[in-house]
Amino acid sequence: MSDLLPVLRVLGALLAMFALTLGVPLGASLWAEEGLWHEYALAMCLTLGSGVLLWWGLREHRDELLPRHGVLLVSLVWAVTPFFAALPLLLVLDAVGRPLSFTHAYFEAVSGLTTTGSTVLSQLDGLPLSVNMWRTFMQWLGGMGILILAVAILPVLGMGGAQLFKAEAAGPVKDTKLTPRMTETAKGLWGVYVVFSLACALAFWAGGMTPEDAVMHMFATVSLGGLSPHDASFGYFASPLLEGICLVFMLAASCNFALYFVAVRKGHWRSFWRDEEMRATLGALIGGGLLVALLLWAKGTYEPLQALRMGLFHVVSVATTTGFATTDYLAWPVLAPVLMLLMSGVATSAGSTGGGIKMVRMLILFKQARRELTRTVHPRAMQPLRLGERVVSDGMVFSVLAFMLVYGATVIVLSLVLLLTDLDMVTAFSAVLASVHCTGPGLGLLGPSSNYAVLTDFQLWVCTLGMLLGRLEILSFMALLTPAFWRR
Amino acid sequence: MSDLLPVLRVLGALLAMFALTLGVPLGASLWAEEGLWHEYALAMCLTLGSGVLLWWGLREHRDELLPRHGVLLVSLVWAVTPFFAALPLLLVLDAVGRPLSFTHAYFEAVSGLTTTGSTVLSQLDGLPLSVNMWRTFMQWLGGMGILILAVAILPVLGMGGAQLFKAEAAGPVKDTKLTPRMTETAKGLWGVYVVFSLACALAFWAGGMTPEDAVMHMFATVSLGGLSPHDASFGYFASPLLEGICLVFMLAASCNFALYFVAVRKGHWRSFWRDEEMRATLGALIGGGLLVALLLWAKGTYEPLQALRMGLFHVVSVATTTGFATTDYLAWPVLAPVLMLLMSGVATSAGSTGGGIKMVRMLILFKQARRELTRTVHPRAMQPLRLGERVVSDGMVFSVLAFMLVYGATVIVLSLVLLLTDLDMVTAFSAVLASVHCTGPGLGLLGPSSNYAVLTDFQLWVCTLGMLLGRLEILSFMALLTPAFWRR
Ligand SMILES: [K+]
Ligand SMILES: [K+]
Repeated sequence: MSDLLPVLRVLGALLAMFALTLGVPLGASLWAEEGLWHEYALAMCLTLGSGVLLWWGLREHRDELLPRHGVLLVSLVWAVTPFFAALPLLLVLDAVGRPLSFTHAYFEAVSGLTTTGSTVLSQLDGLPLSVNMWRTFMQWLGGMGILILAVAILPVLGMGGAQLFKAEAAGPVKDTKLTPRMTETAKGLWGVYVVFSLACALAFWAGGMTPEDAVMHMFATVSLGGLSPHDASFGYFASPLLEGICLVFMLAASCNFALYFVAVRKGHWRSFWRDEEMRATLGALIGGGLLVALLLWAKGTYEPLQALRMGLFHVVSVATTTGFATTDYLAWPVLAPVLMLLMSGVATSAGSTGGGIKMVRMLILFKQARRELTRTVHPRAMQPLRLGERVVSDGMVFSVLAFMLVYGATVIVLSLVLLLTDLDMVTAFSAVLASVHCTGPGLGLLGPSSNYAVLTDFQLWVCTLGMLLGRLEILSFMALLTPAFWRR
Repeated sequence: MSDLLPVLRVLGALLAMFALTLGVPLGASLWAEEGLWHEYALAMCLTLGSGVLLWWGLREHRDELLPRHGVLLVSLVWAVTPFFAALPLLLVLDAVGRPLSFTHAYFEAVSGLTTTGSTVLSQLDGLPLSVNMWRTFMQWLGGMGILILAVAILPVLGMGGAQLFKAEAAGPVKDTKLTPRMTETAKGLWGVYVVFSLACALAFWAGGMTPEDAVMHMFATVSLGGLSPHDASFGYFASPLLEGICLVFMLAASCNFALYFVAVRKGHWRSFWRDEEMRATLGALIGGGLLVALLLWAKGTYEPLQALRMGLFHVVSVATTTGFATTDYLAWPVLAPVLMLLMSGVATSAGSTGGGIKMVRMLILFKQARRELTRTVHPRAMQPLRLGERVVSDGMVFSVLAFMLVYGATVIVLSLVLLLTDLDMVTAFSAVLASVHCTGPGLGLLGPSSNYAVLTDFQLWVCTLGMLLGRLEILSFMALLTPAFWRR
């Protein structure tokens, strides 16, 4: 057990860094003259103090971290940070006379940091600017965390085929390698993320949003979070132009950021367009959007042009796990929302800020199933499984398949737990899917025009657990539950 | 293409044999003096004629069947036989003034032969005895077909881990082999099936059923079909004794028949009890029953004893894919029916007459996931995957995993097609699960007190396809869709 103390030391250092990010809502609060800056300052001091105390108190434990430490560190970071991220919400909302329970505050923080974008708050337009700024900024921070998770933690642990990312990042261009050291890679991805963020905020602003709205919606868009500062979500703007801008950035952010990095650095845009996962992701998103548009038109829900606008925007929004909405799509023919929610499990790339299973895993599974079918008919034929230009090893396929099993089991168990509380089937299953995929809006009671405050505290904790498990790609968390982990 | 003609020739021979089974309802009709024997005789002649014609017409094509022929033969038999099995239903029900559409008749026949036990008929108690005899007898025949499918066809094709059955049948007793030739093995399983059938019918009769009811319910019980001649299903008897007898035979029939065969022949009952799949199956069924009983008691649905009776009977009935009911369990706390339906996908053994994924596959998947989790924490540890006393090869695990993928994809695609018809989500997903698992009763509109006549013709065809795909363990059918199959 004592060999796990260095993990807590690193956690302390990360918390201290996290405290500094509270400067953003603090600044917003000062700028908007809300008179709430001391609440943020208090939250910042508490977070900083805890972090430093942990770091300093364990200064004797500087041992190098092993893979098993990585599992624990990642799990702890994603479980503990929301606790401190919830502090300003608790303090500020109490100060403005809309006190929040700890369950609600922690849920909201996990929802933000995992870029799920579910909310338990209503009358969002009436919240202080700094609160909405913090809610949306958490998603942007979470996006950074996800990128480093994808590039530096999961591949090292070799979990659920996450090694693929490492290889794929370098894959498309044979003679090119991503800068080998991981911090360098992470910086490259962050560079892409920051450039996207600037471009997105400017585009929103130029498209007619106020500067504040542009920044907050940028936070929610590039992180594929979808948490909105408006009760009407993206429908607040009723602007085809802004929806188009949002659409483009959601599509861009659903691709592997390493592809952009490699393409820009080497100028090899042709290999960008050849990447199999990218093509499958964009193909699924746009194809799904057109399909739903067709459905909306065929069933007479909208006129053709409106069907196209509505279908594309909502499919891309939900399937990229963003979750913005401009209308209550639960009123559409039932196939549409179900398809969108199911797609949110698969239609983003590894190395993006999206949630769910990731398209690269689906590609491997699809190819594996096809290979097995061929073998059924021609027992002696055995082709290797290829992704792009490289051969995927059997070990990798196993890894992906184990991931799928644990994923499926997690979804079923969490759903059954919700059913135990007598929640109806549609709400229960969709709440779990929307949480584990980090999508946000569900079906039944949890549609885009509703919010998670309709759930009881216990149900919210189940969803909170689902968001954390989904974001950690489950396996890392599950590994903690194996006896093998705690044995030395 | 012409090399596929021998397949049709065998199909003809099988149809001619199938024609003879119509002697059972014909006999029942004569015995009950319904004046309907000529309808059965006509159906018999048409079936026999078609079979003989096909067999005789293709007498030049006696080539030996290859694995790829097996895939086609199995698919054809299961798709074509119901057409002829539907004939007597069409003729007789027309004669008694309750005409049936072809869609309904084919659905009913597929439901019977796949041992699904869904029905589109109502006022069952008012049907001629011979019709109910035929409906229930189809399940018993289907059970025989399933056993030969499991023992002689699927393992040869090596589909979805079905080879496991071959090995496992011999597995538990090291020094014992099942008679190596497959016809012998099939005869052994059929022997077990016939003994169970006799014992079950006698027990039902001794327990208070009329001889006709005892025979018909035996047909529905040992085949795990669950089609009842009464509108109130098993609730017609309101007898704890009969429910207990039924429970015992459902549990017995959910185990691998080869285990009984080996145990009886060699007297090795200790190895019977050591079989891993058998223990997991019975453990899941009884454990699930007790869990639901506890739930029913805790939520105040029933008094303790009644909760135990209701919980055990219905969990075992639905989870073994039988589908008898004595009450409308959709009125229970929502977790219970959902759990029961999900269990029906996994809680029967390979080599039984049950449907679904089969417990042996779940065991392999579970062990594979556990192995992968351990590897995450200790990258260098790599244990072999064991089932009972033997090591499961990686190829086998791949086979099972591919099966799961195709299974999952089938369920999702069929459900989406039902949603396209604007069926509600709960009904759509449960109809597909209940059909593909060959369970019968679903949720929503398709609970145990309702029936499938509420669906449109198109929706029924989707369910019919689901039943056939589920019964053929999907992969065999899917193989037909691969280009590789049609290439020589
Ligand atoms: K989201
Ligand atoms: K059944």
